[in-house]
Amino acid sequence: MSNYNIAVLAGDGIGPEVMQEAKKVLSAVEQAFDLSFTLKEFDVGGIAIDNHGQALPPATLKGCEDAQAILFGSIGGPKWDSLPLEERPERAALLALRGHFDLFSNLRPAKIYPGLEALSPLRADIAASGFDVLVIRELTSGIYFGQPKGIEGEGEEQFAYDTMRYSKKEIRRIAISAFEAAQKRGKKVTSVDKANVLLCSRLWREVTEEVAKDYPEVTLEHIYIDNATMQLLRYPSDFDVMLCSNLFGDIISDECAMITGSMGLLPSASINSENFGLYEPAGGSAPDIAGKGIANPIAQILSASMLLRFSLNLTEAADAIDAAVVKTLADGILTGELLSAENRDQAKSTSEVGDYIANII
Amino acid sequence: MSNYNIAVLAGDGIGPEVMQEAKKVLSAVEQAFDLSFTLKEFDVGGIAIDNHGQALPPATLKGCEDAQAILFGSIGGPKWDSLPLEERPERAALLALRGHFDLFSNLRPAKIYPGLEALSPLRADIAASGFDVLVIRELTSGIYFGQPKGIEGEGEEQFAYDTMRYSKKEIRRIAISAFEAAQKRGKKVTSVDKANVLLCSRLWREVTEEVAKDYPEVTLEHIYIDNATMQLLRYPSDFDVMLCSNLFGDIISDECAMITGSMGLLPSASINSENFGLYEPAGGSAPDIAGKGIANPIAQILSASMLLRFSLNLTEAADAIDAAVVKTLADGILTGELLSAENRDQAKSTSEVGDYIANII
Ligand SMILES: CC(C)[C@H](C(=O)O)[C@@H](O)C(=O)O
Ligand SMILES: CC(C)[C@H](C(=O)O)[C@@H](O)C(=O)O
Repeated sequence: MSNYNIAVLAGDGIGPEVMQEAKKVLSAVEQAFDLSFTLKEFDVGGIAIDNHGQALPPATLKGCEDAQAILFGSIGGPKWDSLPLEERPERAALLALRGHFDLFSNLRPAKIYPGLEALSPLRADIAASGFDVLVIRELTSGIYFGQPKGIEGEGEEQFAYDTMRYSKKEIRRIAISAFEAAQKRGKKVTSVDKANVLLCSRLWREVTEEVAKDYPEVTLEHIYIDNATMQLLRYPSDFDVMLCSNLFGDIISDECAMITGSMGLLPSASINSENFGLYEPAGGSAPDIAGKGIANPIAQILSASMLLRFSLNLTEAADAIDAAVVKTLADGILTGELLSAENRDQAKSTSEVGDYIANII
Repeated sequence: MSNYNIAVLAGDGIGPEVMQEAKKVLSAVEQAFDLSFTLKEFDVGGIAIDNHGQALPPATLKGCEDAQAILFGSIGGPKWDSLPLEERPERAALLALRGHFDLFSNLRPAKIYPGLEALSPLRADIAASGFDVLVIRELTSGIYFGQPKGIEGEGEEQFAYDTMRYSKKEIRRIAISAFEAAQKRGKKVTSVDKANVLLCSRLWREVTEEVAKDYPEVTLEHIYIDNATMQLLRYPSDFDVMLCSNLFGDIISDECAMITGSMGLLPSASINSENFGLYEPAGGSAPDIAGKGIANPIAQILSASMLLRFSLNLTEAADAIDAAVVKTLADGILTGELLSAENRDQAKSTSEVGDYIANII
């Protein structure tokens, strides 16, 4: 029986309670598929600041290095918002992990599940046309990590600067991720840029066109970021894979998540060239609902599924989780935020949803 | 009788035909308010490339310098898309004019007019909550104009870079624009940034907080750009004035325009510190419908109204145009794109809408 090592970083807010359900599902998978997962838990984010004085303590980083993948919850909350930026959970832990492991390929699927169209903030006739997008976001370069950045000068002349920077190599590897993904899906890549203004976008377009030549079955379209935010609202079903730089992917993936109206269902994966990855829900730590047992565990559970699929290559097990989630939703086993106000009394708790999914598996 | 000099740059696509209607309305205003407008027309954009070999010929620039304001149509089209980026209409004319006249303050109002809620791509119950936002976008700095930018290196190591750059002075003047505007409207400024990643955004937040102290009646909120694209879809009525850097304003203003579902109604103003300005519709040159007499002239007419209001200080005349537009919409005098498919046979032509508005004035 193969054994796999997973670092579990539940973090803050609803992180621990939804992670509990992902662990439940992983043990169901162990039994059903005769696998063994060694889960080691480490503090990260605000809880790590409280317990160890920093958001990403050395022991946590070491634990991640020793594992085959990271299952991440969510981090941050009002308690740590007044810290200097560099020490705050988001930067000190999340951006640090992305950088440290070179997790350049960020996969953010967003889709409207059958029966949940009414949750979308889009007009009924538009939502009915369907929405199933995979945002592929470059995650370790661009204006997030580009040097130099700084603040200089005095008085009113004082100025800040950040550098957006992309090499051909960096663009090529993320473009390849996008085309590989598109080939297994709707065979269309929409590359988002601002090539009428940015030189980075111009190089982006050039390299993307080159990569496209190796994927004759996949259609490549280019769209300006400003136009993309518009077309997504009017013609959401036109999109399949959206290929984005770090900053544009941050924006577009959140818009896509909101278009589904069900953020609590959306997982994400951040992977490096060795298929090592960090897997986390698209939503945040939601401190306002933490500890109440009402958070939706599905994004965390689907993050575990992505982990099995991409880092451990356990396709069947991942398929089983995904199918169990689809069945759970179809059976109407839903947390409160997925229900209309008048049906909210039928809401299932975090653990009831987790149990139901684990049982199916 | 006072005389005012306006440079008229109709441009490409639907530009000339909607400009025709704006001129009609301006002559109605001349009569009604005993004013005199001297309109001088100049080529700009694709037509200027065709006639003079460049998108912003010296005579056009000179004409703009001699005027008190620029009424701009729209530029660009497939015919000129294959030109090198620097020569294309958008960059060579529009960005050049913004830079040349230091038109740092870009006002992009976006609202859902009463009776036109069904055009919004948002869910009926969300659109019904109302939407009336003024995006104030910094237009002459940030990553659009920041230096250095370039492409260096060879082979796969070749890289491109762009610089996002903001000085305190630049941030302060646009923040003041936003607070001044908010004071006359809903008394709320939502400043859009990415302060958890960008140093420019950190300085942006700092200066915005300083400016806020001078406007105690106005509430200031900060929102990350990624979150802003989401909240606009779910809670559009929560926003009043949105203060944005150049790049973020490009994105947010287009998202806001699409939320209204009636881009053909939206004007914009780009103003410098002497109240000289360029006024143009939010939409593009729409080459696919050009020359058919079906384009909506209202965005161009409202751009003329903004010109009277902000550059010529003719408040009453501007109010009269705005009121005439509201009445025209309320009377159901609509171009086709504002009508549902079954009512499209009642569509009015470009010139019928222009006539109707001019007559009211
Ligand atoms: C927390 C923040 C730095 C982060 C980002 O901008 O990448 C987040 O918005 C995300 O999308 O994962
Ligand atoms: C044409 C382009 C350069 C321009 C911009 O990005 O500013 C346009 O999108 C706009 O918003 O006016």
